[in-house]
Order: sequence, then C-alpha cells, then structure tokens
Amino acid sequence: AAAARTAAGGLDLAVIGGDGIGPEVTAQALRILQAALVAEGRPVAEVTDYALGADHYTATGQTLTDEQLAALRRHDAILFGAVGAAPHDRAVPSGLIEREILLRLRFALDHAVNLRPTRLYPGAVSPLAEPGEIDFTVVREGTEGPYVGNGGSLRSGGEHEIATEVSVNTAHGVRRVVADAFARAAASPRRRLTLVHKHNVLVHAGRLWRRVVDEVAAEHPEVDVDYLHVDAATILMTTDPARFDVIVTDNLFGDILTDLAAAVGGGIGLAASGNINVAGTAPSMFEPVHGSAPDIAGTGTADPIAAILSAAMLLEHVGESAAARRVRAAVWSHLEHRAATGAEVRTEVVADDVLARLAG
Amino acid sequence: AAAARTAAGGLDLAVIGGDGIGPEVTAQALRILQAALVAEGRPVAEVTDYALGADHYTATGQTLTDEQLAALRRHDAILFGAVGAAPHDRAVPSGLIEREILLRLRFALDHAVNLRPTRLYPGAVSPLAEPGEIDFTVVREGTEGPYVGNGGSLRSGGEHEIATEVSVNTAHGVRRVVADAFARAAASPRRRLTLVHKHNVLVHAGRLWRRVVDEVAAEHPEVDVDYLHVDAATILMTTDPARFDVIVTDNLFGDILTDLAAAVGGGIGLAASGNINVAGTAPSMFEPVHGSAPDIAGTGTADPIAAILSAAMLLEHVGESAAARRVRAAVWSHLEHRAATGAEVRTEVVADDVLARLAG
Ligand SMILES: CC(C)[C@H](C(=O)O)[C@@H](O)C(=O)O
Ligand SMILES: CC(C)[C@H](C(=O)O)[C@@H](O)C(=O)O
Repeated sequence: AAAARTAAGGLDLAVIGGDGIGPEVTAQALRILQAALVAEGRPVAEVTDYALGADHYTATGQTLTDEQLAALRRHDAILFGAVGAAPHDRAVPSGLIEREILLRLRFALDHAVNLRPTRLYPGAVSPLAEPGEIDFTVVREGTEGPYVGNGGSLRSGGEHEIATEVSVNTAHGVRRVVADAFARAAASPRRRLTLVHKHNVLVHAGRLWRRVVDEVAAEHPEVDVDYLHVDAATILMTTDPARFDVIVTDNLFGDILTDLAAAVGGGIGLAASGNINVAGTAPSMFEPVHGSAPDIAGTGTADPIAAILSAAMLLEHVGESAAARRVRAAVWSHLEHRAATGAEVRTEVVADDVLARLAG
Repeated sequence: AAAARTAAGGLDLAVIGGDGIGPEVTAQALRILQAALVAEGRPVAEVTDYALGADHYTATGQTLTDEQLAALRRHDAILFGAVGAAPHDRAVPSGLIEREILLRLRFALDHAVNLRPTRLYPGAVSPLAEPGEIDFTVVREGTEGPYVGNGGSLRSGGEHEIATEVSVNTAHGVRRVVADAFARAAASPRRRLTLVHKHNVLVHAGRLWRRVVDEVAAEHPEVDVDYLHVDAATILMTTDPARFDVIVTDNLFGDILTDLAAAVGGGIGLAASGNINVAGTAPSMFEPVHGSAPDIAGTGTADPIAAILSAAMLLEHVGESAAARRVRAAVWSHLEHRAATGAEVRTEVVADDVLARLAG
C-alpha cells in the first residue's frame, strides 16, 4: 500500500501534531518511528510538518485549505496527533476543528476502514475484575453512516424546531469495510467475525449490512460469523471481552464501541488507530484514539504509547513490518516494566524507555 | 399520574407477558405487586392479560391490532415482560415483533421518557474491579431520534444500494424529556445532570439538545450541568460510574448506555425501566431492560428481579409509593441474602424469597 518513496528511498511522511497533547505525543512517536527504521537498517523518513488545529485556526481563521489537502495527498502516510480546542474556548465553534480537519481528512482521503485494535498489554490495568485475554480489533467504517454531515434544522431556535441527522450507507462503502474485516478475521487464529449493528430498529441500514456480511461470508467459509445488537455488544465487551476477535460495524457504533474497548483494554492512553485508504488512492493516516486533552496539555504527563503504537501501525501499513514489530516489542517490554515498577507516566520518560528497549 | 381506578378502587392493569422468559418473570412480578398492595392495605389490582408476541404472531399472523391498542389505552398502567422470537426462528421476520409491539406501544402511547435507573445493590456483582457507589438514572428519550422508522433503501439488494436512516429530533420531544430529567436531578441529593450526545458530529441534533438543556438549566440554577460525548461517556461509565447522577440523552444513545449501565450495575437481570407518558394522556408501561432470552426460556433460571423492580416503578408511578417502597426493600434484603448465601438464581425461588421479605 505504500506510495512512491523519496529519492533516498525513505518514507515521505506528513505529520499533523495538532492541539493540546497531540504535538507532545506525536513528537515522541516520531522519534521512535525513526529509531526503529534505523535499527532495521532502513533509511529514516522524510518528515513534513503541517501546522493544523485550533491554535492555527485562532491565529489564521483557517482549518484546512485545499492547498494543504492537496499537499497532504502526496505523502506516503500521515501521522496524526489530535485536534480540538479546549471545551470552554469560545473563540472556536464547538466541533469545528474536528469536522473541518479530522473528519475532512478521513472523508477526502477516502479512509474506508478505521482500524482499532484492542489488546490488554502485560500489566495494563483494566477496570474489569477479570478481563481475561483481550485481543480484538474493531473494523469501523470510516466514511459513511451518521458521520456524513447530512443533517438540518427547520425553525431553528424556536419551540417548533425539528433537527434531523441522516445516516447514509452504501453497498460500496459497506462492502469494502466488510471485505477488509473478513480478510483480517481469516488471517487471525480465532477466525471469528462479529457484525455489530441495531437492525431491529435501523431496518434499512441494518438489512444492507447483513446482506453484505452474508455475501462476503460465502467467500470465507472458514470464518465463524455472528451478530450482536450494539446495546448487547456493550454488555459483552464489559463482561466477556475475550469472546471478541474481529468486529465490523458502522461509523458511529464503531466510535462508541472503540472508546469502551479502550477503557476495558487498559485505557485510552494505549489505544492506537489507523484510517486506511483500502484502494491505495490516497495516504492512510494513523492516530491515537484519544483527543487533544487540553486539561493535561503542557504537564508532560500524556501517555505517548497510543501515538507510538499508531506509528507502529503506520510502519506495518507501508511495508516496514520489521520496524513495526520492533516498536511493538519495545512497547510491550516497557509496559511490563511499567507494571512491575509502578512508574508514573511522563511523556518523555516513557518514550525514552521505549527507545532504550528498541535496540534490544 | 394515575388514571381512573376501577369501581372497587383498585388499579386497572394491563399485562403483556410476551415471549420467552417474559411471561415467566412477569407472573412473579405481578404476584409481588399484588402482595405489596395487600400488605399496605390497598385493594388488589384488576389485571387484564394481553396475549401478544412472537408466539401469538406465529399462531395468528397479528402483532398488535388497533383494537388491542385501543383497549390497552384504557388501563391505568401496563406491565410488560419481553417480546421477540428466537434469533433463528425464520417464521418471524427479524425485529418485526419488537417494532410492531414494543416500539409501537412506546410511540402510540407517547412514552416521552424512558426511565432507566441503575443502582449497585448490596452484593450485586459488577464486572468492574472497584465500582464504587453506583446510583444513577438514565432519562432516555422514548419517541424520537433514530427510532422513528424514517429510513429507506434505493437499489436494494444490488451493488449500488443506498440505505438511509433519519434521526428526527423536535424541540417538543427534547424539551419534555430534558424537563423531566432536570426535575429528577433537582430532587436528587447530588443535583447533577449530564447531557450525553455527539454534537461534534451530529451538529444539528446536537445543537437542539444543547440549546434546550441550556434553556431548562436556566430554570434550575441549583442543578450542576455537564456534557459528555457518547463515546467518552462509555469510558466514564466503566471507569468512574460513581460520577453520574442523572443522564439525559437521545433514544439510541440511551439504548446503548443503559445496557452498559446494566452490565456495570450488577447485570441485565436487575435492570428495570419505565416508559413514561409525561402528559398523562395514556398509560405508562413498565418493563425489564432485558429481552425475551429464548436461550433460557423454560429453564426456570430467569432472574425476576428486573421485572419485580419494574413493577415497583409502576407502583410508584401510579401513586402507590408505600407499596413501591415495600417491594424495593424486599428486593434489597433478598439481594443481600443472595450475596451472603451465593444461592443460584431460580425464578420462582427468588420471587418466593422476595415475597417472604415483603411482609417483614
Ligand atoms: C473527534 C471525533 C470527531 C472522533 C470521531 O467521532 O470519530 C473521535 O471521537 C474518534 O473516535 O476518532
Ligand atoms: C428491543 C429493542 C427494540 C429495544 C430498544 O432498542 O429500545 C431494547 O433494546 C430496549 O432497550 O428496550
């Protein structure tokens, strides 16, 4: 899936640190990404920084220009931190930054698959009493559903207001994410795929999702398929997370389930994700599931692991599997150490420790 | 909120046991409801059974007729079990029973508020390691949102299919549920209300919900108001459920959050709910959050507590507060006993034990 490499043969990466803790964790993830490439005898990546986010918007009135989008398209991949103003920043309309940067990138770069693995790392503290072995992946649709921005309001602001939001689901969009999920399930040792939807209420979208899953399932007799309503899925994710292998679901259900998954899987500080352009027509983008966390920005206490694991997903995606494995192994070893020593999380200290373990 | 009583002065109740474990738990809940009325020196309720559900549909081809609906309207309140066919019953189109009975009743009887309290009872086993004190109520909108059945499909079944689902939100519908939630928050010791939505993505519906919450908040300066995106709410419900007091949210988010709430609050076997007609224009309906559970139907192992607590909500709603308190106290005492003895759950044994504690 990697696009053309730079002249020197290295990766050509775009980096969007964003706001709050975004730049803090991204800087560390980048250090580790480069070190892993070097350790594997690979050329370092060429990096282009894009100043985007709430701060940039406040300074310039711009979110993401067409020129910036065109420039971003030319990279091999994008490493993304987090965007979003502090909730009480009245200068930035609520949600604007998220929609005009993050969601615009996902849609414009056709990130069909929003890939969100959850794994309980050694020593990671799940809020669950007996979490069992947690190792599943949510394959979330990334470009459709209630995220399309197809809403409106009539008689806004008055007592007769009606506000609507339309979830749009296409066979094209559903098929590509379902196909991706089946391919992952077929490659996993447990070969299990769970469709999560709410087809007893969302009849039309639900029927489309089920039909496509049935069709793709016929090509994958080796994969065990089941179905859960989204409400029931939250119960099982809390009481029996070990039952899950690959989950495929729509954009909004995936958003909700993956935050819950992060919580049961040791916290949002460890949750990585990839926004994948499955057709290879534009760069994929890798980002921690967490947001810009303005409340802890500048304190040096943001956990960079989610960003580092997102960088590992990026490496895997562009074909640098050895470097990706190296990063994951170092993170694993770091988290074992963290659990054993009870060391508090400091952004740089964590990254330094992961870096030290990279060479090993 | 109680409508006219029967000639003898007793409650006039409709009972819909439904399918699977529905009739099993409802029968026990009704026994206890009657016993609590008697213990308080109140007349027993007159009960009319309505045979509705998948079995009835298979036998007659009918879900809920206009005549049945008209008859149901005339009661003081409805005690509802659960409806729904076994998932592999191909004779019943999936979701049909839920939509044409349960959802039709909620909409036709204008159940604006779907009230779902969560409380960690003594000895109840939460999957959370340190749940803390869990005592919150989700006030879920009951007649709008993505539940309105406003969806469609173009080019169904083909590779160019588009399926849509429209979430409809009205100022009228949002205001009445928000007003109800504020009244509950104002009456609670902690006086806290959390709006859960996803306004950074669902902009128009989100703006309406926030506006109405702001407006009603102005009438309740004593209530502390905060906001969470639905994804973040799942994290906090899992890691810090004690932070919640009253949550107000839309129909779909409420569906998802209350199953999660049931899981963290000791299991779906304890979760009760009320579908409240706030204007008093039609009977309210009380039902366990759980479904018909065809897999355990007939085994005598369904926990009747959710149905019994739903009956207590019914009693409270129709003004029989003393009887309601009596039921809750007996349930509380039973659950303490259950925790102490580790007794396995058998439907009738549990109800017998609650009944024995009612008198005390
Ligand atoms: C910031 C927000 C728009 C985004 C989403 O809803 O997708 C975030 O919650 C996520 O999960 O990446
Ligand atoms: C059965 C289903 C239609 C229903 C709902 O989605 O409201 C159920 O899940 C509930 O929560 O009462």
